[in-house]
Amino acid sequence: MDTLKYKLTIAYDGTAYQGWQIQKIGTGVQEKVEEGLARLFPSKPRLHSSSRTDTGVHALGMVAHFEVPRAEGSMSAQKLSLALNAWIPPDIRIMAATRAHASFHARFDAVGKQYRYFVWNHRAMNPLLRHSAWHVPRKLNLASMRQAAVHLPGKHDFQCFSANPGYTKATTVRTLTRCKIQAAGPLLTFIIEGDGFLYRMCRGIVGTLVQVGQGKFQPDDVRGMLESKIRSSAGMSAPAAGLALWKVRYPKKGASNLNPGADSAIQC
Amino acid sequence: MDTLKYKLTIAYDGTAYQGWQIQKIGTGVQEKVEEGLARLFPSKPRLHSSSRTDTGVHALGMVAHFEVPRAEGSMSAQKLSLALNAWIPPDIRIMAATRAHASFHARFDAVGKQYRYFVWNHRAMNPLLRHSAWHVPRKLNLASMRQAAVHLPGKHDFQCFSANPGYTKATTVRTLTRCKIQAAGPLLTFIIEGDGFLYRMCRGIVGTLVQVGQGKFQPDDVRGMLESKIRSSAGMSAPAAGLALWKVRYPKKGASNLNPGADSAIQC
Repeated sequence: MDTLKYKLTIAYDGTAYQGWQIQKIGTGVQEKVEEGLARLFPSKPRLHSSSRTDTGVHALGMVAHFEVPRAEGSMSAQKLSLALNAWIPPDIRIMAATRAHASFHARFDAVGKQYRYFVWNHRAMNPLLRHSAWHVPRKLNLASMRQAAVHLPGKHDFQCFSANPGYTKATTVRTLTRCKIQAAGPLLTFIIEGDGFLYRMCRGIVGTLVQVGQGKFQPDDVRGMLESKIRSSAGMSAPAAGLALWKVRYPKKGASNLNPGADSAIQC
Repeated sequence: MDTLKYKLTIAYDGTAYQGWQIQKIGTGVQEKVEEGLARLFPSKPRLHSSSRTDTGVHALGMVAHFEVPRAEGSMSAQKLSLALNAWIPPDIRIMAATRAHASFHARFDAVGKQYRYFVWNHRAMNPLLRHSAWHVPRKLNLASMRQAAVHLPGKHDFQCFSANPGYTKATTVRTLTRCKIQAAGPLLTFIIEGDGFLYRMCRGIVGTLVQVGQGKFQPDDVRGMLESKIRSSAGMSAPAAGLALWKVRYPKKGASNLNPGADSAIQC
């Protein structure tokens, strides 16, 4: 069948959702966007996303693609995002829509992802961040945390930070390209970028770095954690609400994307 | 009567409230904090604030003081903020509590205030900022806006930006010490600081600067607006949700504050 493919960049406040994926109990973000698509396309297209996010996790630059029969594809990509935003709730927004090459796949073509994690490090929580940051009341040692973070970029087996109990077949080696902590007063922003992420890996990394900042681990302990490949050797998993999928990277050039050079990024 | 005075620094998400002040219809933030105080102090102290904020406006560093009979004041200031936070809703937080000098007055002693205003300048709204930023979809000319903002610091009659219809007696001259626009991708942060603000003055300034960015005014038009002293010569009033009272400044030294050197600031 002759079809057209579209690529969507989606932002959401994950507070009200049971994560990205369609759920048996509760509502997934995917479901809401597919309901919107069904209003616009009689074929009721299914979405294929770059990633799945857990309950309460947010996104600014989630990417997903869908296909419709060519006969349904008369709408411009620009108009599509406006029309779709009119049918989905305000806590989910289509940030961009573009036509994509027939071979484009949001998940398989992704070459990198950036997550951001927000920590509010002050005695009392900032009420405006209560659904989008982790409240850590006790003063953290930022220098130690940054010293620990230095050990993470590179090609490592990240199994110790992942909540998945058994990676028996698939590799647990990933390449982290960035792990940086920015501080603006009590607000800490963890910027974590890599070619791929294991299940809950970001939250394991942030939880561990925060525990370094609390003195529960020494900065250099992180090396031993990586070597151990055992979840229990690393620190806690940071809560979901502080995490956001910030952007997904695709090859700048190549046949897999009609929109070369466009990272799915809302630069911020 | 022998009394003790306390100074509170209060943050709130103003979305659910009809502003700071106690309202005949709807709920004010003040009311919620006073209900909490009534749980801790039998004398049911009243709060006196540095400022009033409108419906939907937020705060990170609102300051208020209250007095209790000395007999009720056995609680340490540190414990007070914890105890009070347990009795008030999570969209209001006591960020700091300190003892204050008997002569301290949150409103009369304030020597400066900083407001921040957030604009999300992108086709689609960032869902995480939907209650705390103004969504301006069309691309703004940041250079023009900054050029216009240059005219605002200094001692001026700011009546043209204020929604108050008649300042017949009180002076409408204020000194602005800072008017700066920071950009981080689509997020614009307006930092506006001064010795005092007229009613809705910040929102008038931001609305006008945004309209400069849209080309509806030229940057130098701002001088004429100030000179005119007429509201209709300036631009629109920006919506409440983007505005936050960021901090209130008090004299660093002097008899009016037991806690010298402590601005009521949550630096961010």
